[in-house]
Amino acid sequence: MKPIKVGLLGIGTVGGGTAAVLKRNAAEITRRAGCTIELTHVATRTVARAQGVVGDEVQVSDDMLAVVNHPDIDVVVELIGGTTLAKELMLAAINNGKHVVTANKALIATHGNEIFARAREKNVMIAFEGAVAGGVPIIKAIREALTANRIEWVAGIINGTSNFILSEMRDKGSSFAEVLAEAQRLGYAEADPTFDIEGNDAAHKLTILSALAFGIPFQYDKAYIEGISTLDAADIRYAEQLGYRIKLLGMTRRTAQGIELRVHPTLIPEKRLIANVNGVMNAVLVKGDAVGSTLYYGPGAGAEPTASAVVADLVDVARLLTADPQHRVPLSAFQPDMLSDEPILPMDEVVTSYYLRLQVADKTGVLANVTGILARYRISIEAMLQKEAQGGAAEIVILSHLAREKDVNAAIAEIEALDASRGKVVRLRMETLG
Amino acid sequence: MKPIKVGLLGIGTVGGGTAAVLKRNAAEITRRAGCTIELTHVATRTVARAQGVVGDEVQVSDDMLAVVNHPDIDVVVELIGGTTLAKELMLAAINNGKHVVTANKALIATHGNEIFARAREKNVMIAFEGAVAGGVPIIKAIREALTANRIEWVAGIINGTSNFILSEMRDKGSSFAEVLAEAQRLGYAEADPTFDIEGNDAAHKLTILSALAFGIPFQYDKAYIEGISTLDAADIRYAEQLGYRIKLLGMTRRTAQGIELRVHPTLIPEKRLIANVNGVMNAVLVKGDAVGSTLYYGPGAGAEPTASAVVADLVDVARLLTADPQHRVPLSAFQPDMLSDEPILPMDEVVTSYYLRLQVADKTGVLANVTGILARYRISIEAMLQKEAQGGAAEIVILSHLAREKDVNAAIAEIEALDASRGKVVRLRMETLG
Repeated sequence: MKPIKVGLLGIGTVGGGTAAVLKRNAAEITRRAGCTIELTHVATRTVARAQGVVGDEVQVSDDMLAVVNHPDIDVVVELIGGTTLAKELMLAAINNGKHVVTANKALIATHGNEIFARAREKNVMIAFEGAVAGGVPIIKAIREALTANRIEWVAGIINGTSNFILSEMRDKGSSFAEVLAEAQRLGYAEADPTFDIEGNDAAHKLTILSALAFGIPFQYDKAYIEGISTLDAADIRYAEQLGYRIKLLGMTRRTAQGIELRVHPTLIPEKRLIANVNGVMNAVLVKGDAVGSTLYYGPGAGAEPTASAVVADLVDVARLLTADPQHRVPLSAFQPDMLSDEPILPMDEVVTSYYLRLQVADKTGVLANVTGILARYRISIEAMLQKEAQGGAAEIVILSHLAREKDVNAAIAEIEALDASRGKVVRLRMETLG
Repeated sequence: MKPIKVGLLGIGTVGGGTAAVLKRNAAEITRRAGCTIELTHVATRTVARAQGVVGDEVQVSDDMLAVVNHPDIDVVVELIGGTTLAKELMLAAINNGKHVVTANKALIATHGNEIFARAREKNVMIAFEGAVAGGVPIIKAIREALTANRIEWVAGIINGTSNFILSEMRDKGSSFAEVLAEAQRLGYAEADPTFDIEGNDAAHKLTILSALAFGIPFQYDKAYIEGISTLDAADIRYAEQLGYRIKLLGMTRRTAQGIELRVHPTLIPEKRLIANVNGVMNAVLVKGDAVGSTLYYGPGAGAEPTASAVVADLVDVARLLTADPQHRVPLSAFQPDMLSDEPILPMDEVVTSYYLRLQVADKTGVLANVTGILARYRISIEAMLQKEAQGGAAEIVILSHLAREKDVNAAIAEIEALDASRGKVVRLRMETLG
């Protein structure tokens, strides 16, 4: 199958991540897409630096229009940001019949209606999964996965900077100004943080979600926007005493009178999963009349999380251009002739952590026997809980570090064979999922 | 655009939900799919009952093969369950060139390799989003949204019955047997709960996720399966003391030696979002090398949640059959000529709940004044917190029930104009997201 050729406009954080992911995961991506996806051209103002990043096989120049007009390029990836030059270049690419992938939320939220109309005329795809919530596939979810539903509302924590600041204000009881300064030191907030903390960035994203959820035009100019810069730490504390967390929430809801479209600090009951989304993470909760509430959670920004969305869009384009339509998406996710024969690991060979509960005689020396057996099987102990003895028997709970199932089972057999043993050992596995 | 005609095999819980959603949301579904999706035939053993459910416009019979062979039907929806008759009918439908939608996890996990091979020969789609985690679109996420990633592992709470039982055992300290009986009374567990509580159902689903995540064949027979029926309430308690929750987790992980594929009770650190997924809800956590961890959460079973997935699959088929390929999925989620002109609601008209923090003189009668103003604007109070006075001023925090923004703002202006007022009122909005 002939490769898909990609021209990249802009190679900052997300552009660099996109180049890195395309290169590192080339084999896995080809197995999924059914053809190779090749980054052939990059346009950037910093040519020498970019050439160092992408290597000699990619043509790097500072001529954005040349990339947009290049006859060999199938897809243009726009990652320069802004709404002026980016719009011009995107329209030029569309006019040239090229598909476009972008992560530019401001551009879609403010000029999406015009851009989409042009794309339909020219019969090209515009893919923009990276524009909302970074690596969290919320656009695909709303556009393709929840299509059975009359969507009632969408609520999202869709600005990582604000969520980091609010999480820290709550954890440390600090003021907004203190935490903002810390966020800037850590690189979670920009030197000029206005767009993040005043809610504009979240409103761009919410405008996109609202249009997709309800089938209305993009109407960023009608969004109500209120940021977190005037939020008082006292209110975070009072809210907590009442059982709530304060989040910068984007909320769009269908009512009989019209569509709500608003971003502002919002109290949410702490028992909701979304109230427990902390730090720079993003989450979007969608309420549909058939499915009920579904939640989508993950990293909302950063080089590779956003690149994950950009490259998935490229795979969508590739599958469209190369596969036969019925199997645009392969049934097994990977192309049928590219399945892998990696073996399924026997349980004995699995390495994980363990919880062991032992019942033993309450005598000196028993614990030494047990830990000796564990050590012999290279099972090291992370935590231990000794429960009070009843009727001469003690209960010992042990959490292990990583160990092999076979070793753990052998150790358990030896422990159960001790004279001091007072019953079967309970063995549960533990996953940190970090 | 010509309608897509659907034949439904089996009209139990999920089949009934599917018929209901197709009917109730017909207009919204057409706006998304670009054509109508019509349920034209149902085959079931209980003809009279089914006819009552779907109405006279649908042909109901007890002849499953007649539906599979009917020349007018474009898509067969298989919801009879089991792996014998269901397999026969599905293969017959495929041989007849019909697309198939199913929620049958056991069938895909055990015969998916054969079924997919036949579908590729016959160039038809097999869609099975409803087979894993009900209304949570985890199959689309893995198959289409995370395609940039080398997936490292997938961990899921994918059996609602078990998760309900474990949640209740933890909350109430009850034994497995007690909670199972309660779950059966509530309809969360079947009369014969073996498949749910012994992990087979979760292993079917995990087998599917594993194949899609790693590009390997379905290998249910190699799965390690351990259920929750022998789990002791004491271990749930000890785990909690150590900072963990016990979940029936499906875990599939890529290692250098092979693919782990295992279902068993598992300790998870309580600080993980997935550890806080309680009751009958499902959640799947996917770790990709580019995106990091993303989580997908929602109702894993039930009539309409599962129907949401089944109907989304039908929309996928419809978009494939009717749209021009470039715009298989419309850019704005809805067909461009079917956007809605519903207005964006001005913020003044938004109805939500409010958090108000007032600073007032610490004098008798002030609270009566304040509550009088609120009552006049039809703002009722859900909770109130009076903070101790400092320097003669008291702080009052009020949570309201639903009220209109315009009324709240007017009330605030009156409160601030009181002689007793000692500063601006802090006004935050509150969303319960229930």
